[in-house]
Amino acid sequence: MELNFEQQEIYKLQKDTLVNGLIDIVPLESFEKKLKESILNNKPLKIKFGLDPTAPDVHLGHTVVINKLKQFQDFGHQIQIIIGDFTGKIGDPSDRDATRKQLTDEEVIYNAKTYFDQISKIIDKENIEVFYNSKWLKQLDLEEILNIASSITLTRLLERKDFTNRFNNNKPIALHEFFYPLMQGYDSVALECDIEIGGTDQLFNLLMGRHMQGHYKQNEQVVLTLPLLEGLDGIQKMSKSKNNYVGIDESPKDMYGKLMSYPDDLMEKYINLVTHYSIENKKALIENIKQNKIHPKNAKMQIAKHIVTLYHGDKKAEIAEQEFNNVFGRNALPEQIEELELNAGIYNTYEFLTDNLSLFSSKSEARRMISNGGVKINGEKLDETQLKIKLEDEMIVQVGKRKFKKIILK
Amino acid sequence: MELNFEQQEIYKLQKDTLVNGLIDIVPLESFEKKLKESILNNKPLKIKFGLDPTAPDVHLGHTVVINKLKQFQDFGHQIQIIIGDFTGKIGDPSDRDATRKQLTDEEVIYNAKTYFDQISKIIDKENIEVFYNSKWLKQLDLEEILNIASSITLTRLLERKDFTNRFNNNKPIALHEFFYPLMQGYDSVALECDIEIGGTDQLFNLLMGRHMQGHYKQNEQVVLTLPLLEGLDGIQKMSKSKNNYVGIDESPKDMYGKLMSYPDDLMEKYINLVTHYSIENKKALIENIKQNKIHPKNAKMQIAKHIVTLYHGDKKAEIAEQEFNNVFGRNALPEQIEELELNAGIYNTYEFLTDNLSLFSSKSEARRMISNGGVKINGEKLDETQLKIKLEDEMIVQVGKRKFKKIILK
Repeated sequence: MELNFEQQEIYKLQKDTLVNGLIDIVPLESFEKKLKESILNNKPLKIKFGLDPTAPDVHLGHTVVINKLKQFQDFGHQIQIIIGDFTGKIGDPSDRDATRKQLTDEEVIYNAKTYFDQISKIIDKENIEVFYNSKWLKQLDLEEILNIASSITLTRLLERKDFTNRFNNNKPIALHEFFYPLMQGYDSVALECDIEIGGTDQLFNLLMGRHMQGHYKQNEQVVLTLPLLEGLDGIQKMSKSKNNYVGIDESPKDMYGKLMSYPDDLMEKYINLVTHYSIENKKALIENIKQNKIHPKNAKMQIAKHIVTLYHGDKKAEIAEQEFNNVFGRNALPEQIEELELNAGIYNTYEFLTDNLSLFSSKSEARRMISNGGVKINGEKLDETQLKIKLEDEMIVQVGKRKFKKIILK
Repeated sequence: MELNFEQQEIYKLQKDTLVNGLIDIVPLESFEKKLKESILNNKPLKIKFGLDPTAPDVHLGHTVVINKLKQFQDFGHQIQIIIGDFTGKIGDPSDRDATRKQLTDEEVIYNAKTYFDQISKIIDKENIEVFYNSKWLKQLDLEEILNIASSITLTRLLERKDFTNRFNNNKPIALHEFFYPLMQGYDSVALECDIEIGGTDQLFNLLMGRHMQGHYKQNEQVVLTLPLLEGLDGIQKMSKSKNNYVGIDESPKDMYGKLMSYPDDLMEKYINLVTHYSIENKKALIENIKQNKIHPKNAKMQIAKHIVTLYHGDKKAEIAEQEFNNVFGRNALPEQIEELELNAGIYNTYEFLTDNLSLFSSKSEARRMISNGGVKINGEKLDETQLKIKLEDEMIVQVGKRKFKKIILK
């Protein structure tokens, strides 16, 4: 059972592509073996992805996993999405007395539809198997549940970070909470999944799938995790509540503009996790940026346009780019610039920039920016030796790329 | 809703009798209230007792709880015995690979019958309600089980001593083990019990019944615990494996003999927990013993005869007592005494007792016993000043109450 030459090539391409961007592969040998067997026997792998039935607005942070699913799908593997409707429908029993946020069947189905409508911009939703885990979880009886529970020790469960922390800080953990990872693991038993994918913060829960399959004498799934994507601030995980996100339903213009605003050092991560470039093109682009063969700003524009294209198509992406160029492009000024009335005369450069225009909070800050070539007057770089400025009407003072002020003489 | 005079008397008698011998009453006020309401409304209380389906040979240690149930039954309350067949039938899932000790339905029923045949010597078995807990436990689904589990925290569960110890000593606790106390507690929900009785080592599990009933918004049961009975050695809990027990199916003679052999200071406990004397008679007998109005040996004989009567009837108890008197009575010798051939002559007392007769393992032991008056020769106490003994044919040497040797001169 050896791969022939052509199969070797396919294997290499699949492996390189699929491994790209991952954090955990547990275990690697098993992943390689499953991939080879799949190619050899022309039998798709079953790729599990579990989903809350609460239907968020999908943003680029969510697409990190979905993009990986798309890669599997493109290679002909079978995506199995499990909607965790069981817990969604029963709510958290410890909230019994409070208003329980139980979802009805209709809500679960509506939420799932909303979700699939959004992600269908990325993957072929007709080619996905969708399961609701209440189907099998509802049928478990106490004997089976005790059997499931007998497979795991308290010590192992307390290894999950949030449990560890709560236990060590004497914060209560109700017994039923231990069951959620077990149930998630049992989903893998029900579907006999080959691979499960999730965010790196889900590693413990994903490993439960391996554990439960082992307990049920099944072939254990491989666990693949992906990093959490930092938002536009470059620091915190992308999320709606942090307002550092790019929603995949946002307008082309907003999407493009936002995608020009994250820190340059995140570009490699965005290329790997958010774009749909081929593995070769990803590597080439990253290499070109590193070797300064492409200007970071141009690279970022290329990535932004690519991503807008994914969600809005070529034409709209083109228009978004033009608009951006009109506003922020090399010789263009923004459409609206703040105007300031000042008396004509000769001003001390530093006082003028800090006190009169409030462009800096201190003279030393102004000095630093000028010496870096970051201050322009009517498009010309201000020289740090120029200590006086003679005001002209409609004179435009620019700091960095985005800050402009226009002087109107009184 | 006040008790009239007659009801007050009934209440007082019931309470005094039922409280006698208990260790825990949780909570006392609730016990008093339930008892009063039962008398006022002429409505029996439902008294739960949980039973393993493994059918032990019943010994006096077991009867401590059964005697308490009998008192409740005699006062007209309803005994509910729950046979824990659910766990018996599924076995311990963590033993899956080992030979599982699963009981069949037939075995469970056979064991229960064996048990009831034995305890029917104490309580009226026709007047007991018997339940098999698989009836309701089998029907629990995951939603209900999560609800049950949500009622309790890990910290609370770890308060059970064996869990605490194992956790602190890094010995594994499998998750399903936490469910056994919860299931036992749920049994009380299923039957809406008023009172649950058990050994004091069961306190944690019995309190789970209160906890679960509270979670299900039921009136919480009162928990009553009884002490564990020390066996004939006076030290360890009575048990078959320690061979310090009196089985309720033992012959009258063995039973009587064994019941004369436990230490005197346990007599009060045996009176309270093992006899069926009325509360007044118990108190009177204990008082008489304390005030030396009755000789301890006579008190013990009275108790032994009473207990043999309970399990074998008057006549057999009478015969057992006579036999005992024939063997161990004031002037009687046992029917068979070990004989030893020795040469005639004068012997050193201590060497004679230790080396020739092997009645003691050391001379100092012999000396202690002699000075306590525990050694008799031909029925006369041996004086500690007597250092020599002249042997006679058929001389009888007695140590304590039961050890005899007869000398035959060669």
